[in-house]
Amino acid sequence: MRLRKRPWVKDEIFQYTSYSVKDPTQLKGKWQEWFGNQNPIHIELGTGRGQFITTLAKRNPLINYIAIEQKQEVLVQAVRKAVHFELNNIKFILGNVNNLLNFFGEQEISRIYLNFIDPWPKKRHAKRRLTHHLFLKMYKQILVDSAEIHFKTDNELLFEFSLNELSGHHFQLKNISLNLYRDEEEIENHVQTEYEEKFINQGKPIYRLEAKWLGTNQKNWRN
Amino acid sequence: MRLRKRPWVKDEIFQYTSYSVKDPTQLKGKWQEWFGNQNPIHIELGTGRGQFITTLAKRNPLINYIAIEQKQEVLVQAVRKAVHFELNNIKFILGNVNNLLNFFGEQEISRIYLNFIDPWPKKRHAKRRLTHHLFLKMYKQILVDSAEIHFKTDNELLFEFSLNELSGHHFQLKNISLNLYRDEEEIENHVQTEYEEKFINQGKPIYRLEAKWLGTNQKNWRN
Repeated sequence: MRLRKRPWVKDEIFQYTSYSVKDPTQLKGKWQEWFGNQNPIHIELGTGRGQFITTLAKRNPLINYIAIEQKQEVLVQAVRKAVHFELNNIKFILGNVNNLLNFFGEQEISRIYLNFIDPWPKKRHAKRRLTHHLFLKMYKQILVDSAEIHFKTDNELLFEFSLNELSGHHFQLKNISLNLYRDEEEIENHVQTEYEEKFINQGKPIYRLEAKWLGTNQKNWRN
Repeated sequence: MRLRKRPWVKDEIFQYTSYSVKDPTQLKGKWQEWFGNQNPIHIELGTGRGQFITTLAKRNPLINYIAIEQKQEVLVQAVRKAVHFELNNIKFILGNVNNLLNFFGEQEISRIYLNFIDPWPKKRHAKRRLTHHLFLKMYKQILVDSAEIHFKTDNELLFEFSLNELSGHHFQLKNISLNLYRDEEEIENHVQTEYEEKFINQGKPIYRLEAKWLGTNQKNWRN
């Protein structure tokens, strides 16, 4: 969807000074200080309108959440949700995933959520998929040992690609589902994104996996 | 399919004395001696009519193959194929996979093929699925380190189950495909079973994976 550029949107995002800062690189390695506690930090890459991560933040007060989104026109809607619910365990970054290593320090992050990311279906664009091993390599530089990536998509090819990239690069896969809502009761067991609700209504299968990073000490891994 | 019992079928299988023996437990740990060489041994569990494994045996003379099947009425057809093509790198076991540890010794096997095995769709029958972790535990007792399991199925639920069982029990997944013949050219790159040809003609997707056992020395694996 193309969104009209509205210059005041950026101002609105940064007006909420307890939720976002213009230069998040200043917080690299210091996010827990800003949160004011030692709770683990979970991040979502490509947060969109924020239904997923703000719902998690409401439910899990002992987790710190950081939502990253490069489109200010959608991020502002996520920020408004946090303001509305007066959440104090979530922050927002208006920025690009390519700059992740400028935002976070070593072992600063305990979990990454990837929900309905761009599938980049053309082979020559594979490197832009956020589960490509070059991105995984970047994630490892900010993850604690045994950190997890939780990934959902409606795209079969992207899911297949991601299974292979993750299992081939020191992540142990678990809770893999090829049709998350095969059993309708599962809808209550998971938090949905805005896109996901649409896909469920269309009857499209949702793929999901969790991947645990096996950590820096991996003498016995063989490729 | 129900097959009429024909008592002479068993006699026919054992009449080909260079292909099968009445008591394969006598060969435990000694299969290479019978093959007369030091080549690696690959086995197929549930060989059926044998198109898959006899084709592999024709193509790969430096691999020893052992085909296991409990139904004599179908196994005899596999044996006839080997006789017809005068293959000298394949043997047959009329027997049940539950007895695997009576047939093979430690580190005797380099690869296991599982093709279109019974999905046992009911949850209470999960333990009978040949990718259940209790079967994986059995396989590990006969596999060399870094041995592989190559698995194909048309059953989504069985594939999902198998992805989870394997990745959760010290196997590294690779070459995972959620639709093996998405690109029709792939048909030439793989050997098909009789069932598989039927499924392809029906347009059913075939799922496939390879799983490498990470071996006995796994200090850094964490469950």
